[in-house]
Amino acid sequence: MSEKITSRQQDYSQWYIDLVRSAKLADYSDVRGCMIIRPNGYAIWEKMQAALDAMFKETGHVNAYFPLFIPESFIRKEAEHIEGFAPECAVVTHGGGEPLSENLYVRPTSETIIWSSYRKWIQSYRDLPLLINQWANVVRWEMRTRLFLRTSEFLWQEGHTAHATSTEAEEEVLRMIRVYKTFAEEYMALPVIMGRKSESEKFAGAVETWCIEAMMQDTKALQAGTSHNLGQNFAKAFDCKFQTRDGGLDYVWATSWGVSTRLIGALIMAHSDDKGLVLPPKLATRQVVIVPILRGDKEAVVAKAHSIAEQLNQAGIGAMVDDSDQNSPGWKFAEYELQGIPVRIEIGPRDIKNNICIAARRDNAEKVQIPLDNSLTDTVSDLLRDIQENLFDRALAFREEHTMEVSTYDDFKSNIDNGFLVAHWDGTEETEAKIQEETKATIRVIPEEPELIERYGMKDPGTCIYSGKPSVGKVIFAKAY
Amino acid sequence: MSEKITSRQQDYSQWYIDLVRSAKLADYSDVRGCMIIRPNGYAIWEKMQAALDAMFKETGHVNAYFPLFIPESFIRKEAEHIEGFAPECAVVTHGGGEPLSENLYVRPTSETIIWSSYRKWIQSYRDLPLLINQWANVVRWEMRTRLFLRTSEFLWQEGHTAHATSTEAEEEVLRMIRVYKTFAEEYMALPVIMGRKSESEKFAGAVETWCIEAMMQDTKALQAGTSHNLGQNFAKAFDCKFQTRDGGLDYVWATSWGVSTRLIGALIMAHSDDKGLVLPPKLATRQVVIVPILRGDKEAVVAKAHSIAEQLNQAGIGAMVDDSDQNSPGWKFAEYELQGIPVRIEIGPRDIKNNICIAARRDNAEKVQIPLDNSLTDTVSDLLRDIQENLFDRALAFREEHTMEVSTYDDFKSNIDNGFLVAHWDGTEETEAKIQEETKATIRVIPEEPELIERYGMKDPGTCIYSGKPSVGKVIFAKAY
Repeated sequence: MSEKITSRQQDYSQWYIDLVRSAKLADYSDVRGCMIIRPNGYAIWEKMQAALDAMFKETGHVNAYFPLFIPESFIRKEAEHIEGFAPECAVVTHGGGEPLSENLYVRPTSETIIWSSYRKWIQSYRDLPLLINQWANVVRWEMRTRLFLRTSEFLWQEGHTAHATSTEAEEEVLRMIRVYKTFAEEYMALPVIMGRKSESEKFAGAVETWCIEAMMQDTKALQAGTSHNLGQNFAKAFDCKFQTRDGGLDYVWATSWGVSTRLIGALIMAHSDDKGLVLPPKLATRQVVIVPILRGDKEAVVAKAHSIAEQLNQAGIGAMVDDSDQNSPGWKFAEYELQGIPVRIEIGPRDIKNNICIAARRDNAEKVQIPLDNSLTDTVSDLLRDIQENLFDRALAFREEHTMEVSTYDDFKSNIDNGFLVAHWDGTEETEAKIQEETKATIRVIPEEPELIERYGMKDPGTCIYSGKPSVGKVIFAKAY
Repeated sequence: MSEKITSRQQDYSQWYIDLVRSAKLADYSDVRGCMIIRPNGYAIWEKMQAALDAMFKETGHVNAYFPLFIPESFIRKEAEHIEGFAPECAVVTHGGGEPLSENLYVRPTSETIIWSSYRKWIQSYRDLPLLINQWANVVRWEMRTRLFLRTSEFLWQEGHTAHATSTEAEEEVLRMIRVYKTFAEEYMALPVIMGRKSESEKFAGAVETWCIEAMMQDTKALQAGTSHNLGQNFAKAFDCKFQTRDGGLDYVWATSWGVSTRLIGALIMAHSDDKGLVLPPKLATRQVVIVPILRGDKEAVVAKAHSIAEQLNQAGIGAMVDDSDQNSPGWKFAEYELQGIPVRIEIGPRDIKNNICIAARRDNAEKVQIPLDNSLTDTVSDLLRDIQENLFDRALAFREEHTMEVSTYDDFKSNIDNGFLVAHWDGTEETEAKIQEETKATIRVIPEEPELIERYGMKDPGTCIYSGKPSVGKVIFAKAY
């Protein structure tokens, strides 16, 4: 355990940095803007990867790996794409001691290098769909960085699919944004709003971008995943045509979708507290830490602690024992609270006599007595499920408390620091840009969640809060990470 | 199924390229020297990763992630290291549209960037050992490339450990080369010779390099994994000292060890044949393909095929059915032979009547009748185990047939194209260099396998086959990939 963590109330940004470093999740490196993901942080990424990878495979995708480097000429082939990405790229100009004949961009995303291959692999509708995902590192030269949330290099997955029809591509875009929503809500315990991005917020080169948007504890928004309908843009840029079922020739329809290590930042910011990390049980490497209270017959207490751990491990619940006598129980409690282990079990000589142990929840500090019998694993299992649900419910309640509808720009301005604002917008990029200039808020999402649409009359026509012009529906504004 | 594969006898190099491309394992990209690992190839890597990662974790290691970029000044800190790696690096000179104040090297290996962090993390013997592994991409600018075996970018894992004593570091080096040997032999069915590298073949910056060396079907050697004792070289370069248990101050002792996607190349070259890939069952995504012979009551045959697949899948054996009627059984047989699926099950109406199916082994083309009853999964399971063992035994027998002892340089020269040569060497770099110049053969390994040492009298003194000077023992020479 290291330095004291600044409280959220005192300075939310500093709290985040303190927590990430104290819990040894990540650290800045000596390379500008690049982070080191330390073992505690990487373990969370491994759990996320395993869950997501299984969901991708269940939906028919396979993994592959494409080159890190993209020839400059490739990245220039899609006009919007180069405009969006070229300014933030790292460029290799020398290799093997010689200047290169063509500069190589370190991939900021892989549409161009992948579509230059798809062109060779796709001849006919029989080669479609092509459903490929890649786990990789990407580089985007960021001026202002923040561990996990915005770094020059980060880890992510990027799905790149090719389809015979526009409809199939649209279905894929929705399928994958739903996969992300399910992952965020069921694994990360993070409620998200699914919907579309406005023109100015969409991916460079996409026809339409879908996203999931979450609220952090400081009421700011965080984009947690995106799924892009690329139409035929990349197929046209790379001249990727296929023979259609009826003998014609058409450009291939494309999608891409991704989530990154920024999800670790979202996880921290959504659930953690002034004592440290709070991990949802499904993403914790270990769900339970057992701390024996070393009084009286120490050996018996330690033996009992290990037998409880074994019982839990056999039931598939990750449990560890800290029986070191270098540190006090109090020190251990603080350390495992910092690390975010969902349940702490305390056991001492008196508990053994009473045939019980004490379980302390990380999420709300409640303590419960648990009988030391065959029911133990079920009880702990239920407790973990309850913690997982409570984290979700708490985050959802927080978001709902901090979501309000506004109908005037004055209301907008005085409430924009308090969360998500539901407001009418005239649909123009000009208005969006002016609101951003004046308030730093952006349109986070045009929700496509039936429940929200109904609650806020999202699809009802009205008047733009900024321009007074007609609006075809409401959108969600917020300040964002 | 695509183009015809050149036979091994006709042209072994072309056979390899044809196979890799026909089986859709990998392809060259439009980026000089970089490969695309296609889904069929990446699936093998995923199986390898899962097995290795579990073995690393069982031996106490955790995963982390360090930056892709290394400042030029870091890579210059260890003299031998920079000499070995700088000439083959890709260099980033621009980022975010601006020239950089210091060039960044794309990692060719991560010792320097990792030791610049370890320096901050290690203060005391209590912080040791540090047992970290990283799964990552690395770049080494290769002039002559070959898919999987030698490409400018490849995927690998690199372990980097820090220890309080030289002895602990030595133990770690051996522990990990043994992990690699176990993996190669038990998963890849690839017999390897474990031992040390000569001075000139060791890792740039290491005190000693251990390796595992395998023989391919053309009798050439392939280095399949290395484990380096780095002594205190990197700790000194990065001024990484720690407080010892007895209150002193010492430099930290280091190891590093790695295997890469070149193992996929080794796997192919060791076992595959003129029909295509031959995969050991433990590294196949699917162990069994079921091809229904669609005659007579087609529906009944297809239903039976699926029920067999279900029975196998439930027993943890990966099985798939190809019941498409677009392709003939003959086409399917050839396709799944090309893909290397270990067992093909054929089932037709007559087989159902006789309550049997036919299982064809990929490794030796033998066919066996299997009764369609509860014993099916055990029978298939035994068959798969037998295939796994047969591949290993066959490769070992091949290596032994192609390993011979030579006592004169004339014998050496006339046999160097036939495999591994056991020979006395005077221990000097000069002799090694001259032999390489004249024959293209190098010292692959100074074996530390008791059985080989005894068989060939490896540790007996003698006379160098080249210089006639005294030799303290025999080594293994070969031409290598």
